[in-house]
Amino acid sequence: MASQEHPGGRRIRLGMVGGGQGAFIGAVHRIASRLDDRFELVAGALSSDPDRAAASAAENGISADRSYTSYIEMAKAEAARADGIEVVSIVTPNHLHASAAKAFLNAGIHVICDKPMTVSVSEAEELVELVRSSGKLFILTHNYTAYPMIRQARAMVRDGAIGQLRVVKAEYAQDWLAEKAEETGVKQAEWRTDPERSGAGGAIGDIGTHAYNLAAFVTGELPNELCAELSTFVEGRRLDDNVQILMRYESGARGMLWASQVAVGNENGLALGIYGSRGGLEWSQEHPNHLWYAPFGEEKRLITRGGAGMGEDAGRFVRVPAGHPEGYLEGFANLYSEAAQALFAAREGKSTPGGVIYPTVEDGLDGMKFIATSVESSKNGSVWTKL
Amino acid sequence: MASQEHPGGRRIRLGMVGGGQGAFIGAVHRIASRLDDRFELVAGALSSDPDRAAASAAENGISADRSYTSYIEMAKAEAARADGIEVVSIVTPNHLHASAAKAFLNAGIHVICDKPMTVSVSEAEELVELVRSSGKLFILTHNYTAYPMIRQARAMVRDGAIGQLRVVKAEYAQDWLAEKAEETGVKQAEWRTDPERSGAGGAIGDIGTHAYNLAAFVTGELPNELCAELSTFVEGRRLDDNVQILMRYESGARGMLWASQVAVGNENGLALGIYGSRGGLEWSQEHPNHLWYAPFGEEKRLITRGGAGMGEDAGRFVRVPAGHPEGYLEGFANLYSEAAQALFAAREGKSTPGGVIYPTVEDGLDGMKFIATSVESSKNGSVWTKL
Amino acid sequence: MASQEHPGGRRIRLGMVGGGQGAFIGAVHRIASRLDDRFELVAGALSSDPDRAAASAAENGISADRSYTSYIEMAKAEAARADGIEVVSIVTPNHLHASAAKAFLNAGIHVICDKPMTVSVSEAEELVELVRSSGKLFILTHNYTAYPMIRQARAMVRDGAIGQLRVVKAEYAQDWLAEKAEETGVKQAEWRTDPERSGAGGAIGDIGTHAYNLAAFVTGELPNELCAELSTFVEGRRLDDNVQILMRYESGARGMLWASQVAVGNENGLALGIYGSRGGLEWSQEHPNHLWYAPFGEEKRLITRGGAGMGEDAGRFVRVPAGHPEGYLEGFANLYSEAAQALFAAREGKSTPGGVIYPTVEDGLDGMKFIATSVESSKNGSVWTKL
Amino acid sequence: MASQEHPGGRRIRLGMVGGGQGAFIGAVHRIASRLDDRFELVAGALSSDPDRAAASAAENGISADRSYTSYIEMAKAEAARADGIEVVSIVTPNHLHASAAKAFLNAGIHVICDKPMTVSVSEAEELVELVRSSGKLFILTHNYTAYPMIRQARAMVRDGAIGQLRVVKAEYAQDWLAEKAEETGVKQAEWRTDPERSGAGGAIGDIGTHAYNLAAFVTGELPNELCAELSTFVEGRRLDDNVQILMRYESGARGMLWASQVAVGNENGLALGIYGSRGGLEWSQEHPNHLWYAPFGEEKRLITRGGAGMGEDAGRFVRVPAGHPEGYLEGFANLYSEAAQALFAAREGKSTPGGVIYPTVEDGLDGMKFIATSVESSKNGSVWTKL
Repeated sequence: MASQEHPGGRRIRLGMVGGGQGAFIGAVHRIASRLDDRFELVAGALSSDPDRAAASAAENGISADRSYTSYIEMAKAEAARADGIEVVSIVTPNHLHASAAKAFLNAGIHVICDKPMTVSVSEAEELVELVRSSGKLFILTHNYTAYPMIRQARAMVRDGAIGQLRVVKAEYAQDWLAEKAEETGVKQAEWRTDPERSGAGGAIGDIGTHAYNLAAFVTGELPNELCAELSTFVEGRRLDDNVQILMRYESGARGMLWASQVAVGNENGLALGIYGSRGGLEWSQEHPNHLWYAPFGEEKRLITRGGAGMGEDAGRFVRVPAGHPEGYLEGFANLYSEAAQALFAAREGKSTPGGVIYPTVEDGLDGMKFIATSVESSKNGSVWTKL
Repeated sequence: MASQEHPGGRRIRLGMVGGGQGAFIGAVHRIASRLDDRFELVAGALSSDPDRAAASAAENGISADRSYTSYIEMAKAEAARADGIEVVSIVTPNHLHASAAKAFLNAGIHVICDKPMTVSVSEAEELVELVRSSGKLFILTHNYTAYPMIRQARAMVRDGAIGQLRVVKAEYAQDWLAEKAEETGVKQAEWRTDPERSGAGGAIGDIGTHAYNLAAFVTGELPNELCAELSTFVEGRRLDDNVQILMRYESGARGMLWASQVAVGNENGLALGIYGSRGGLEWSQEHPNHLWYAPFGEEKRLITRGGAGMGEDAGRFVRVPAGHPEGYLEGFANLYSEAAQALFAAREGKSTPGGVIYPTVEDGLDGMKFIATSVESSKNGSVWTKL
Repeated sequence: MASQEHPGGRRIRLGMVGGGQGAFIGAVHRIASRLDDRFELVAGALSSDPDRAAASAAENGISADRSYTSYIEMAKAEAARADGIEVVSIVTPNHLHASAAKAFLNAGIHVICDKPMTVSVSEAEELVELVRSSGKLFILTHNYTAYPMIRQARAMVRDGAIGQLRVVKAEYAQDWLAEKAEETGVKQAEWRTDPERSGAGGAIGDIGTHAYNLAAFVTGELPNELCAELSTFVEGRRLDDNVQILMRYESGARGMLWASQVAVGNENGLALGIYGSRGGLEWSQEHPNHLWYAPFGEEKRLITRGGAGMGEDAGRFVRVPAGHPEGYLEGFANLYSEAAQALFAAREGKSTPGGVIYPTVEDGLDGMKFIATSVESSKNGSVWTKL
Repeated sequence: MASQEHPGGRRIRLGMVGGGQGAFIGAVHRIASRLDDRFELVAGALSSDPDRAAASAAENGISADRSYTSYIEMAKAEAARADGIEVVSIVTPNHLHASAAKAFLNAGIHVICDKPMTVSVSEAEELVELVRSSGKLFILTHNYTAYPMIRQARAMVRDGAIGQLRVVKAEYAQDWLAEKAEETGVKQAEWRTDPERSGAGGAIGDIGTHAYNLAAFVTGELPNELCAELSTFVEGRRLDDNVQILMRYESGARGMLWASQVAVGNENGLALGIYGSRGGLEWSQEHPNHLWYAPFGEEKRLITRGGAGMGEDAGRFVRVPAGHPEGYLEGFANLYSEAAQALFAAREGKSTPGGVIYPTVEDGLDGMKFIATSVESSKNGSVWTKL
């Protein structure tokens, strides 16, 4: 059962960059941080627009003197306070992630950062260097990795339940960009289809990286070569809205990845199929409390969050009994919970406790390489390209 | 999209009775209260055991001077403080609900109370009287009524989507009491199977009332007569663990209700089927973001939380886009969100805003009548008995 | 794997009563009889209307001289032929089942008969006597008993997989009579809602008996007492279109049965849940190749037709590998296959081979008692009534 | 509703090549041919082994004088008989399809042939020529094209329900070759993994062609370029057991195809997702009576075989009402039913009636090109290759 204690009776002081009124993922981060009561949002540069920044801060209980319009300024000011933030959540459009992260890392403040991590591999590499030299924590919110049944799947693969990995099937199908939403005032659509703010990848960066990261998280393997076909189906769109990729793994495994934002009828269809020499695992984000396990030659079993068959890797995150569905926000909160464990330890000068897992700056770099390699492969006629 | 503002920049000061270490539903209430950031837990009588009360308070960020071991004392002390709690959540075993509620209502403090509301109809009737005379708010946490797709179903029935109601099918199937869990140290099982603490109903009170309440909530109708068979399958258990009931409605509709805690293979299988002259609706708690709608003579449609076809009655509660599952805790939080709307209004001397809906003390009385009538029917050989 | 041999190289000569143009179930019987190539339809009284009888016979490859308009005449004529039919399928409306069956039994011809078996208990009792004294085979087409996964479930209950039976949940939900189809020229609706042709039960006879029979088939238990509420929702309809029943078993088990032909959104929703002290089984006719098995305290398993976990009781009927769905017609054919085994044996003066199972005339009598008792219970105000 | 008449009161005289004891697909063809009573199996070369041929013939009611051990001989003898077969079903391993087909076409006998059609493109091209010059019918049993809901999907795409095609996702996942079944006496596995008998493709020929054909059947489009990765995961196996392919269509659509016989936990997982500018369609073979249709911006609908929303293209094949599942054998029988319509017409010198659809020799050639191109692409390092 998920523990809710916060050592020393003191919540972690959290700041936020981005996430003002009209944004989506910022609100998710705030709920996630609150759910288990280990964080306290005390400062923010929620918007670069002064009015929106102020209004957003007020709405979120941030006092006016700790509401900023510049994250540079915020990093400095907070670092100077005795009660300054211990960690910042960066939830801006992608192109600001790197510079914001640098500002806080340089100010000695831990970072929680949304994905994709940066807009280029070189930016990502610099960030890896900086995180290493800073000694600060960097948590990348590939939130789906914190679903209990994903942890269960990872543990089962690790423990040999499927034998040797053969086939990876990763999908992320949506339909919200099937028409040109970016021209109808949908803010989320605008920046996600704008190369200036999203980077070189559209669907591949926004959702493809999630699928890629999740497959790697569960299997423990990364492909070393891929062949990608990026398409743009909506006329005039500047980035890809459909992605299909073949992947080769050094172990001999083979994979396919499909990410689409134009697959009509799909809401948030992230799904994973992992097949090995002795068993198979299947999971779908829209029913996250269920994990199908097929040991070869036996009946398929349905492993449920909180139910029989679930092990401790998943059980750490269970808040309510089996059959009481925990969803997207809980999964996101689980990642904040992992972050909290690491941050509490860091507060006391200790390293992150064993068993605590979160996507790292290196995972972020892997994601950027995946995007860059896919874009390159596709531009060259969808040829096999080394990662 | 769910609004998260709290008027005046000030969260509602919340107290809690019950919910100390080892309890289940208290933690759920706390998460629910935190999720949308409108409540602040500042006082509690989390346990009558001093050590456990203190430890539980500390864990939950309640300062020692506002941690009590008696709810009587707590009601008095908090009422006397300028910064005293505005509302209390009562999450004890059932037998304490009424007296705790009275203590706070009498102290001028609003009440959020877990279900079933009391352990007898007469207790419930007294509470109805007291709530009415006190002028205070009383919110009963029949949490399932706040799932967005349940709001959607209710709105559709109200708006004529199924025509005239004919058949109601309500189920709540679990299996956690299939063996004698109450003798293996499972605290939840202990008090739920103890008539002293649970009242005259076992499964019927614990989960049957949820199914009954939910059916009434969606259809807008209550049966006027029922025929109940309460069974106890686990030897030596003192309360029912399986319930099957036939129901007659004044409108001519007919219903069936099945609640079981021994139906092996079921985790938290609350489900509703509502059939009318022109359409049908089906919903299952384990996949709460989906609502099936069948207009007679047309294809079945799947209405999703956040998706096309969802109306404003449900849309008020949506935090994240369609396909990002919201679950049990979000549903529970929706009820706290309704409570918050009512409490904010009350703070300003206004009545509860139109559109805000929560189960009331009268609903609690209906639930107690349902339990009492079912027990009576069953004791008399499962004969038809007026409600 | 299902064997398709027919001893002696000779198919069983089959006759049919009823099933002319415009009928439904007759065509199903014919397909079922053909599927495994063990029967040959050579004679029929497909209609009492001479033109329709002739046309229907021609369509089905029955030679004109063996097409009759009277089953009395047919029984005599066929009994007199050296190449006369060995067995007759009776697929008329219910009110003709008994007299037709008698005619053929008395003529020394085996009988396959549709359900419900008769229109009264006394008729059924007479038929039981006659079958016994005649020494002929009588196969009642409760076709759902021959789905492989139903055989699997029965075997598992028999072998102790669920422990001691506690709760039976049987449902059969349709919606095709949600409006007054009997007045729009739907022949199937006409006779099924006509007490002269259907007997005293509407939905209870047409589909309720299937659910009742199936529950008994799988559990091996019959209730000894029931409390039934029969309703008619469509104005002016002469028989029940919705049925809800509570049942008590001598073993202490309890049951519920719901049958409805007005549950909008349901096509042919026959479903069974069987819960015991150690496990549970769930099956739904619309996905007949799947059987859910939950051993208490372990993960749920999905047993599939043809897949791992399926035993020989089901395996006898498998025609195509797992994942190649076999459906309603195959299930029906399985029953004809059982009949064929019995008939081949009878041809050689042997008794029915061990392992061959089909619903008997006694099962038909049980069904008639179920209908009669339910009607009686309901007429008396839905009181508990002994079976 | 499916008609069962056979003009002239005379069934079509059918012969069979292959399908003796121990075979799989031959029995399926026989059941399919019998289901609607339009064919009569009167001759066969069921095996080249004399004993097995004789025993198999006897079992299937074929008289000894029309049981052959050579299809060459059979073609001659049957062509010479006044009551000779009108059509032959060829159900041998792949390498014999072409020469058997030629023998019968040259003898003036129509052909029904299993897929993949041949073992090489050149063989297929020859066959196309021969069919054209012979004027005989050639029906390729891509049986999945005859599922009613597949016909429904095809009609909907044709009628514009999804707008312009964008993305095709075709999958066919099985697991029966996850271990080396070909060395454990499984006859089906032996020849399917033997290039001498299967041709150059393993999984790609056995199941990949089905997925490819089905996607083409529903969308009405064939890709003009593909990039294929064929893998063999089971050590020592001589053909591919996992296939992943990217496809480009001239229209701009993009596709992915995955076929695997080592995806543990999958039985016969043929599935199709078709996404266009205005809607999406999804179908899965294991639940063939259901078709999901998502018009963009509206709720998803479930179209069912026999239910509301089904049009005449599917309705032609419905034997039993909605909710009574029809499965694999019925789907196969539908194709025989189409063949029968064409054969009855041919008997009278007429062309195939409008609306009758079956996979043709040209479709078979397309399938062979697909296999050959995929094999070539894969051998060359999985490069894009024109079809």
